Amino acid sequence: MSTPRILDGKALAAAVLDECRAETDALTNQGITPGLAVVLVGEDPASKVYVANKVRTCGELGFHSRKIELKAKTTQEELLQVVRELNADSAIHGILVQSPPPKHIDEEAIIRAIDPRKDVDGFHPENVAKLVLEDPSGFVPCTPAGCMKLLESAGISTNGAEAVIIGRSMIVGKPMALLLVSKKSNATVTIAHSRSKDLPAICRRADILVAAVGRPEMVKADWVKPGAVVIDVGINRVEDASKKSGYRLTGDVAYQEVAPLCSAITPVPGGVGPMTIAMLMKNTLQAARQLSSM
Amino acid sequence: MSTPRILDGKALAAAVLDECRAETDALTNQGITPGLAVVLVGEDPASKVYVANKVRTCGELGFHSRKIELKAKTTQEELLQVVRELNADSAIHGILVQSPPPKHIDEEAIIRAIDPRKDVDGFHPENVAKLVLEDPSGFVPCTPAGCMKLLESAGISTNGAEAVIIGRSMIVGKPMALLLVSKKSNATVTIAHSRSKDLPAICRRADILVAAVGRPEMVKADWVKPGAVVIDVGINRVEDASKKSGYRLTGDVAYQEVAPLCSAITPVPGGVGPMTIAMLMKNTLQAARQLSSM
Repeated sequence: MSTPRILDGKALAAAVLDECRAETDALTNQGITPGLAVVLVGEDPASKVYVANKVRTCGELGFHSRKIELKAKTTQEELLQVVRELNADSAIHGILVQSPPPKHIDEEAIIRAIDPRKDVDGFHPENVAKLVLEDPSGFVPCTPAGCMKLLESAGISTNGAEAVIIGRSMIVGKPMALLLVSKKSNATVTIAHSRSKDLPAICRRADILVAAVGRPEMVKADWVKPGAVVIDVGINRVEDASKKSGYRLTGDVAYQEVAPLCSAITPVPGGVGPMTIAMLMKNTLQAARQLSSM
Repeated sequence: MSTPRILDGKALAAAVLDECRAETDALTNQGITPGLAVVLVGEDPASKVYVANKVRTCGELGFHSRKIELKAKTTQEELLQVVRELNADSAIHGILVQSPPPKHIDEEAIIRAIDPRKDVDGFHPENVAKLVLEDPSGFVPCTPAGCMKLLESAGISTNGAEAVIIGRSMIVGKPMALLLVSKKSNATVTIAHSRSKDLPAICRRADILVAAVGRPEMVKADWVKPGAVVIDVGINRVEDASKKSGYRLTGDVAYQEVAPLCSAITPVPGGVGPMTIAMLMKNTLQAARQLSSM
């Protein structure tokens, strides 16, 4: 038992955003103001908070931003039309439709309609394929990109390391696996999930353990090899009568018992979470650069 | 030590082709003759053999086929033009440009130019993304599709199994990992490669071991857990003075010493190899069905 290194996502995100600000200034001096459009359909309170944060961060960096709030009953065709207009708008370099949209919207069709060169979430098939093909001109989904940045900036080598990812989603698990197994990272990567047999034993192999399942405090001390690096992508609300709000936020990792075993670990909140928005801004800058050099 | 089950790819490929023949007859009765175009640039002798086999198999199934042989000095633009014409040709449902093309050809750009609905090799970004997204309307690359078919037809369950894939290529390793980790297959999947530390120990975890590295007989007996299923994707030429040709074909697995340990194993030749062409024909039928129902 020793004191693990806390991978401070809040501080790192602030540093990434400082870099973004400097680059924004340089681009603006060339006459290019990076522009991000965020589309929100409906009234989901959590989505409203996320969208507000993104728009505020744009303001802090000197981006042009556009917030488009649509009624919950907006039709698929109306939403597609909004996306098409943003595709055609030269002041907009990044387009993001806040997930999840209302149930009657076919989210995949909406994502496909976004110009892949403006798909700063990295969910368009074109960008998914670029991730598999290791083509750096594509956009990497923000959360796994943030995890990679946390590892990289802490000087944690992935080369030849055993990485285990719990979760196989399109948003985190699969892209994280592809990033870690790439020729740039060279990790040996295991993708585990709810159907895996003896998940604790699989996780105990990991030099780098990434938890992205959305189950509060699932990863216990006996799931973790002493000295491992633990990246906790989960953000779960659990009831807590001692809190004014009635709940507290917790990750997929039982932090109190796991942290003493680790060489490094991300806290929740303040770990992966803040990195996601920072990487979104980085992606938007990449889009602005790439679109304006065409 | 016991006698392993030999996963006979030659017999299974013949059965798959029988199914294809029946489906071809049914389609032809509806006025649709499946059509495959195979483009060969240059004079590579191995490529010539592959192309001839594909065209011959088309004939055996009652497909329409077109073999387009281009000179080695064909330009990128000339080749693109051929692809465009095939895209526009309603008698052609599948288009395949034999790999590798001459060095001056940008293969990725050629693949991108193929209509994804006719990309029966499954290498177009659109189909790569569909594989990640688990969208069955895409085309799965033929070799990993053949490996999955071998497992399936032998009744080998992947559900919760530990699968280890050696190799992270776009043609085999990555698509195989995506297939095995999908919600349909539910394996726990490890992707290992030349940079992995202690490859033998990683491979010994596998219930299903897939070798796709292209190194003759690399996988030895002490890499294999007793009772494992071994799929050998390698086809390597090694010098052999006792053969008239001066060489023999061998897989990535040291078959003689590994086979007695396995519950099931694919031979080389006669394992994965024959499945590849059978899955190409299946993909072409899928293309013919999908294009004619549009």
